[in-house]
Amino acid sequence: MGLDKASGIRIGKGTLGKLDLITDVPGIKVGHVTVRDGERVNTGVTAVLPHGGNIFRDKVMAGAAVINGFGKTMGLVQIEELGTIETPIILTNTLSIGTAATALIKYMLAQNEDIGLTTGTVNPIVCECNDGTINDIRGLHVKEEHVFKALESADVTFDEGAVGAGTGMRCMGLKGGIGSASRILKIEDKTYTVGALVLSNFGSLENLTVDGRHIGREIKEKLEAGDADKGSIIMLIGTDVPLTERQLKRVARRAAAGLARTGSYYGNGSGDIAIAFTTANRLPHKSKSAFSEIRMINDASIDPILEMSAEAVEEAIVSSLYHAEPLKGRDGRLWHSLKEFI
Amino acid sequence: MGLDKASGIRIGKGTLGKLDLITDVPGIKVGHVTVRDGERVNTGVTAVLPHGGNIFRDKVMAGAAVINGFGKTMGLVQIEELGTIETPIILTNTLSIGTAATALIKYMLAQNEDIGLTTGTVNPIVCECNDGTINDIRGLHVKEEHVFKALESADVTFDEGAVGAGTGMRCMGLKGGIGSASRILKIEDKTYTVGALVLSNFGSLENLTVDGRHIGREIKEKLEAGDADKGSIIMLIGTDVPLTERQLKRVARRAAAGLARTGSYYGNGSGDIAIAFTTANRLPHKSKSAFSEIRMINDASIDPILEMSAEAVEEAIVSSLYHAEPLKGRDGRLWHSLKEFI
Amino acid sequence: MGLDKASGIRIGKGTLGKLDLITDVPGIKVGHVTVRDGERVNTGVTAVLPHGGNIFRDKVMAGAAVINGFGKTMGLVQIEELGTIETPIILTNTLSIGTAATALIKYMLAQNEDIGLTTGTVNPIVCECNDGTINDIRGLHVKEEHVFKALESADVTFDEGAVGAGTGMRCMGLKGGIGSASRILKIEDKTYTVGALVLSNFGSLENLTVDGRHIGREIKEKLEAGDADKGSIIMLIGTDVPLTERQLKRVARRAAAGLARTGSYYGNGSGDIAIAFTTANRLPHKSKSAFSEIRMINDASIDPILEMSAEAVEEAIVSSLYHAEPLKGRDGRLWHSLKEFI
Amino acid sequence: MGLDKASGIRIGKGTLGKLDLITDVPGIKVGHVTVRDGERVNTGVTAVLPHGGNIFRDKVMAGAAVINGFGKTMGLVQIEELGTIETPIILTNTLSIGTAATALIKYMLAQNEDIGLTTGTVNPIVCECNDGTINDIRGLHVKEEHVFKALESADVTFDEGAVGAGTGMRCMGLKGGIGSASRILKIEDKTYTVGALVLSNFGSLENLTVDGRHIGREIKEKLEAGDADKGSIIMLIGTDVPLTERQLKRVARRAAAGLARTGSYYGNGSGDIAIAFTTANRLPHKSKSAFSEIRMINDASIDPILEMSAEAVEEAIVSSLYHAEPLKGRDGRLWHSLKEFI
Repeated sequence: MGLDKASGIRIGKGTLGKLDLITDVPGIKVGHVTVRDGERVNTGVTAVLPHGGNIFRDKVMAGAAVINGFGKTMGLVQIEELGTIETPIILTNTLSIGTAATALIKYMLAQNEDIGLTTGTVNPIVCECNDGTINDIRGLHVKEEHVFKALESADVTFDEGAVGAGTGMRCMGLKGGIGSASRILKIEDKTYTVGALVLSNFGSLENLTVDGRHIGREIKEKLEAGDADKGSIIMLIGTDVPLTERQLKRVARRAAAGLARTGSYYGNGSGDIAIAFTTANRLPHKSKSAFSEIRMINDASIDPILEMSAEAVEEAIVSSLYHAEPLKGRDGRLWHSLKEFI
Repeated sequence: MGLDKASGIRIGKGTLGKLDLITDVPGIKVGHVTVRDGERVNTGVTAVLPHGGNIFRDKVMAGAAVINGFGKTMGLVQIEELGTIETPIILTNTLSIGTAATALIKYMLAQNEDIGLTTGTVNPIVCECNDGTINDIRGLHVKEEHVFKALESADVTFDEGAVGAGTGMRCMGLKGGIGSASRILKIEDKTYTVGALVLSNFGSLENLTVDGRHIGREIKEKLEAGDADKGSIIMLIGTDVPLTERQLKRVARRAAAGLARTGSYYGNGSGDIAIAFTTANRLPHKSKSAFSEIRMINDASIDPILEMSAEAVEEAIVSSLYHAEPLKGRDGRLWHSLKEFI
Repeated sequence: MGLDKASGIRIGKGTLGKLDLITDVPGIKVGHVTVRDGERVNTGVTAVLPHGGNIFRDKVMAGAAVINGFGKTMGLVQIEELGTIETPIILTNTLSIGTAATALIKYMLAQNEDIGLTTGTVNPIVCECNDGTINDIRGLHVKEEHVFKALESADVTFDEGAVGAGTGMRCMGLKGGIGSASRILKIEDKTYTVGALVLSNFGSLENLTVDGRHIGREIKEKLEAGDADKGSIIMLIGTDVPLTERQLKRVARRAAAGLARTGSYYGNGSGDIAIAFTTANRLPHKSKSAFSEIRMINDASIDPILEMSAEAVEEAIVSSLYHAEPLKGRDGRLWHSLKEFI
Repeated sequence: MGLDKASGIRIGKGTLGKLDLITDVPGIKVGHVTVRDGERVNTGVTAVLPHGGNIFRDKVMAGAAVINGFGKTMGLVQIEELGTIETPIILTNTLSIGTAATALIKYMLAQNEDIGLTTGTVNPIVCECNDGTINDIRGLHVKEEHVFKALESADVTFDEGAVGAGTGMRCMGLKGGIGSASRILKIEDKTYTVGALVLSNFGSLENLTVDGRHIGREIKEKLEAGDADKGSIIMLIGTDVPLTERQLKRVARRAAAGLARTGSYYGNGSGDIAIAFTTANRLPHKSKSAFSEIRMINDASIDPILEMSAEAVEEAIVSSLYHAEPLKGRDGRLWHSLKEFI
């Protein structure tokens, strides 16, 4: 359930998508696996599928932005060079990126018998935040089967909050996790969607700002506790607007605007990474022709997409905080939900 | 006079510097020349001097960030490669960058008889925004002597608002221009300063946000007028904290956070450029030794500088709007001041 | 006359274009103005026109690469952001970039009455090398009319060597200047052209390598003189192959390969800048539709373009050295031509 | 044994280090594990340790360059942001990066009990090339214990050629693999070392160039076989010259010059990645002071380091080809050694 419907909080001025989730963009699916033992293990995996087909054979155009690079996200080098994503995107905890990468590689090998044999290799996209405050991250509790299950369970409807990769995240002194939002745009009488999905795990309580309201200062007084600025955020933006790789980088960079409005200044210890992709421009792995025709919005008409991308990211962050249920961390500290203070 | 003192608006939580201007950083000076004819000519030049000595001989460490690159700022290629600034920074209107560059080159040649003779050339830093809505920019009214005069008149105290390069700027549907702010930091019992100076010329009225308040929407109703998103912003950050070139790039990128909080989503047509420099690490043009010792803050201690940089930029933008007096543009439209609505 | 025809030196394995010049790419024209007084003044301007129409209204897709950024080239920020070039490209000496920018702006204003009035501004592309060893660069002898004349005189045939912007350049201990080359490619039975034009002013004699032969060491012994590594090179690559902005950046980066093979290691003091553009993808300044259709080569088929770009740059550098006539510098030193030693 | 000693081939003009290996830089060690079954399995792991201590606690300054980004190297985002390396560098085949990352993470967790508990996480550096032509890469034959063993066996002396991560690599139509070289520099009467280590797996036979000689064309005629351009190269540069993060990026980019001279044009399918680090500037994970003093060479004195970096990379590539013994691939094709043709 979208943030507006659940809480009445309305971020920005755009038109919300039907579910107010990234999956309002036709074809995108999201799957979670939550890994918990009721005590020290609080982690998981979230998988984002750009479309329902074989992504290696039918790549989506993409661009990325490193807003602050204290992070371990895998796969950005090739996105920058080739402007495409050729696997689902896996989100998990920082120390599990190796396991997630291996699982994702196996998943791609199973789907594509030619990888590493008669064609090249594959570029796994694995994003992460450090859930070590709440989760026993040293235990490496994410296993390959969790990744497979997240991929298989991906659907149009999915939960927000402390689920999947978001299970053990904390954000601005509160419980963080998965959040999502979407916006509808009309361009020349056709309807397009911009969606965002975030894994929030950054910032300090006193900076928390919701739609301009410095609510973090208020909460801090009530809780008589704070949190040093640390942690990261992954911000994915999907759309069906036809954009080039260059334009998708522009879109990804707008995540920084949405992020800043929630109270972040991109702290030193934060891996603030944004990836944007469009389902409208697909590049086949193999083509009979040497050339492709692609469609792009003219940059003179791109402002609504940039603005809605920033807005959707801002809402997705607030939504991740609102939907996250309170959780006790591995050290016994209770991490509150924003919902308790709205 | 700082924004807080003038208006009572207090941005963020940091400690203000004495003047609440970038010149609170010891050594920095700012000079304006306003070029107006009372009608169609409304433009000018602002010069920022990193220190009082010969900047070519005693370069300051610097880093830059292109937040949105629809801009013509000169000199960034060499800042990125060498991590230094070796001239004062000139701000002016977009079509006058050539004139400003020539004037700045002549100024440097006069100061340094070896440039182009027994040593290399010099990298002029010229930043710009498009004041064509208010100013007859096609008239190329900025002359070399305006640049010389701005350099010569540089001082610790200087005006904000519609002066110097800010004369003809408009920002979020209101009159824009020059704004500045500063923050004081204590690190290991020593006091340091972070200062910002902006040339604001971006955004649309309905997005204007002052300390979280969506005041632009309110003003828009009153004025029954708006403004399409366009234009640019130059954001300079100076400090005396010892930082490396890499760290100064980090600082420059935080301008994006301050900018977003005022309502920008880094619109397509905006040249959103940030340059950060420190007076604490100077690199001599010629050295007897092959090596230099430099001082840097450890990144684990950099957060306050990042946060105060974002905050100072946010305040500087609001300050530019507050201090800018209303002005009639070349087309007769009156550009209001934020001061009228606070 | 191409290098091969003039000297018998054949670089690489590709097929040469008809003139073996960048103007083999249909539509590209090049114009020179040489500014000399027979003594201390040895400089000039070279203009490269991507096509014969109004470039502001009909922009060409472009990408750039900064191989070493000790340089003052103007306009790269916007090329990176928008992926287009909207003016002719002007080459001149380092201290004349301001004058060249102003002249280019005036040229664009004259052609486009809406710039700065009802549409935005314009992004002048001005590239430079330091000819101060041979030329009285401090004298600022390039005037606006030289730029206009270079633009007006642009043609399909043009001279290489110590002409135009190349007049006062020196390269690897010899006389440098303007060089050009082209290669023909067949893709799916259609013929395409890749052309390069360089302004060479880099490197040290002992590293000069021509088609693998370390001829610089031989020449150094004969001349009993050398040259410290300094200076820069501008490398332009034009083509009619359909490429995206991202792909044009890839092409521009291949200039580094051609450059390295002539003996450069991208010395500290060198502004090694490459710009690539295609005439096949044009973006109108204003469009009735919000969308454009563009054509791109699939990256799986791009290798010949990358390889020929490197090869054309390598040949263009050698050609600049070969065609440059010996010249006495402002200090009386005679700068020899490579032609004397082949 | 260095290339010169083994073959008499002398690349460039610099002074060779004692072993002519990257380990001539004091503190650097290299370890290999070769994984072969005599048939289809031909792969392995190479570990490069920047120094003998705990690298997480005592990080080395670093910079990286993506020359062509069709690659999956992990860890570059954080190197760019923080300018440090905090783990050994692991090289292996493309599809084993996940396994290598997990093993490297476990190795770091065992050495540092606070990671993920009371301090942050760790940034594993894993580089790769695709050995799928010779190795059954889909079999994922690299196991975590191979990584541990490579790390433990690291030493000052190590083999070049078809060993460790180089076991299954092919390069320019011949057998590729691990190569290394070093150069000695004198700066102000003190001796410094620049060393390179490459994992070569790129290019096409006809372009192979050894010290300017186009030997690939000769070999191609003899073998009556060629190889399409594909594959990648990892280029590591280590030194004990004091350099900043910015300067180390400059050094890393010079790998492109060495690479181009061997015949590469940075083909589309190549992940051409360079990482440079210095053992002279160490940054502690935790520090009592907020500040550090670092030493840097002045850029005016950096040319010898840039030139020797390019030269060492060029030699290391040729050395990898020379030392690699012929090997039959998984498909029965015999991959020859350069040694057979010199």
